Amino acid sequence: MRVSYAEMAAVLTDVLNRRGFDPPRAQRCAELFADTDRDGVYTHGVERFRRFIRTIENGVVDVQARPRRVAAHGALERWDGCGGPGNLNAHASMARAIALAQANGIGCVALANTNHWMRGGTYGWQAADAGVIGLCWTNTLANVPPWGAAEPRIGNNPLIVAVPRAAGHIVLDIAMSQFSVGALQSYAARGERLPVAGGYDGDGHLSTDPAAIDATRRLLPIGFWKGSGLAVLLDAAAATLAGGRATHEIPTEPERESSLSQVFIAIDPAPLGGPQHIADAIVDHLHATPPGDGAVRYPGERTLETRRRNLAEGIPVRESTWNWVTSL
Amino acid sequence: MRVSYAEMAAVLTDVLNRRGFDPPRAQRCAELFADTDRDGVYTHGVERFRRFIRTIENGVVDVQARPRRVAAHGALERWDGCGGPGNLNAHASMARAIALAQANGIGCVALANTNHWMRGGTYGWQAADAGVIGLCWTNTLANVPPWGAAEPRIGNNPLIVAVPRAAGHIVLDIAMSQFSVGALQSYAARGERLPVAGGYDGDGHLSTDPAAIDATRRLLPIGFWKGSGLAVLLDAAAATLAGGRATHEIPTEPERESSLSQVFIAIDPAPLGGPQHIADAIVDHLHATPPGDGAVRYPGERTLETRRRNLAEGIPVRESTWNWVTSL
Repeated sequence: MRVSYAEMAAVLTDVLNRRGFDPPRAQRCAELFADTDRDGVYTHGVERFRRFIRTIENGVVDVQARPRRVAAHGALERWDGCGGPGNLNAHASMARAIALAQANGIGCVALANTNHWMRGGTYGWQAADAGVIGLCWTNTLANVPPWGAAEPRIGNNPLIVAVPRAAGHIVLDIAMSQFSVGALQSYAARGERLPVAGGYDGDGHLSTDPAAIDATRRLLPIGFWKGSGLAVLLDAAAATLAGGRATHEIPTEPERESSLSQVFIAIDPAPLGGPQHIADAIVDHLHATPPGDGAVRYPGERTLETRRRNLAEGIPVRESTWNWVTSL
Repeated sequence: MRVSYAEMAAVLTDVLNRRGFDPPRAQRCAELFADTDRDGVYTHGVERFRRFIRTIENGVVDVQARPRRVAAHGALERWDGCGGPGNLNAHASMARAIALAQANGIGCVALANTNHWMRGGTYGWQAADAGVIGLCWTNTLANVPPWGAAEPRIGNNPLIVAVPRAAGHIVLDIAMSQFSVGALQSYAARGERLPVAGGYDGDGHLSTDPAAIDATRRLLPIGFWKGSGLAVLLDAAAATLAGGRATHEIPTEPERESSLSQVFIAIDPAPLGGPQHIADAIVDHLHATPPGDGAVRYPGERTLETRRRNLAEGIPVRESTWNWVTSL
């Protein structure tokens, strides 16, 4: 079934109001979920709302908690997320980084003690919508083995980079594992193989069998040793700047994942002046590439196409999921 | 053969003095090359010096040119590399970013019109040695096909992240291709297969045959579509902030590669206070991982081991290369 953006946002806002959110925060939180489905990231929108509600019920998420600044030096600030809703904390942190960038050219907010930010790309789009370059990342619970090991000890630590562009921002949102556990389960449920190797099977061989990888929990980092190393660095930088927890200190049960550390950086190129349309020329050159196996897209291009379609035709939602949401 | 660090630096300094460098710049440039061999990155040290000299001779590198600031807003600055030596420009830019971070918590220098920075990791070690977190990247000539295409149109755009740690900094230096062209050629010369797929063969299949990949020029981005997307974002951010050239505007002949755009970010966590030894605890936890196929190392660990050995025993150099250098 399809639900209009306005209806989805209104229904979710209503649910959150009844869960104790202050009205403006209920609306913002609901819109961040609806934006995610509108943009086609269906794993992290309404489908994820069920787990979000459970983390309110189990006390991981404190709906009333707001982030507070605990230290600052110039354009660098450290905030405590106080265990509040992860998407509201992250949105407030990127908003603050943008304000710092507008005042100082570049700004950085490091956020400790926060919860899952849902779709990380949200905060890249937020920065680009404000006309600035955005760069943010989070640590996560341990869900990937470091290179050379079989046991999950590093997070898949999503990294987001966004460059604004009038005709459509360039926005990348990538985890350090080639596929998420959720993606493996989606492929397995559809009876499909992965398009490329996503981890190791029970014999220790690289595999495209999602069920075999899910069984070993040996997800593959992007670029093998490279993504493993980048996950370590993102964790070390986030925990150090936030003065918060590192991956090895985060509860490993998904619905208990909490006390995450995140970094939000915004850079405002406008006051520097200089040539315009650099990002446009990059996109034009990519689009002019002779295609090999498929069309060449820039990161964010498909998101924008999906957004336009979903705003026009309504957002696809599983009927069982929507029935559950409207029964809350 | 092995050459002491002091001898290597002195010989290279002498060569550069006779090529027209001012004495302090000759010494710094020579040390940056010697540091690279000392740390075991043999592809980008003395072995690379031959190409560096040729780029002086062909006019790509102007030994007298110094970077100059062309725009600034708070903690964000734009510099013009003026076609000077790439490693000197990059070192000066990271030094400036560190100073900006010490004053403002975070600092960013975007550098246009510069040349190949040789080993990117150098500037990560530089930041960490100053006690700050470093993040820098460069664009390059087009040497990797974007995901979905067969023709090289994106750069392998190395990304460096460094977190300081008293017992040994955590430093990552990764290109967006799984292997560099130089690495492919090294494997091919030794008659070895790649340890993991590094690109496509002539039939369009993923391959571990370095010669077959070198023939198609279809290098594989790390994480397939993910590394391809990250390369696009790093290029767009660097060219936009620097007001400089993007990959598609950079000459594709290696010895004509010039007018690169780079970004140097430093973040100083010290004034924020808070918990110490976060990076130590991450390293300790990694080291305690039960090994799978090999030992678990943190990024930079091997570098430090190699550095200690090479300082004690001398730096390994190919005799033919060293004979050529000393004949200059």
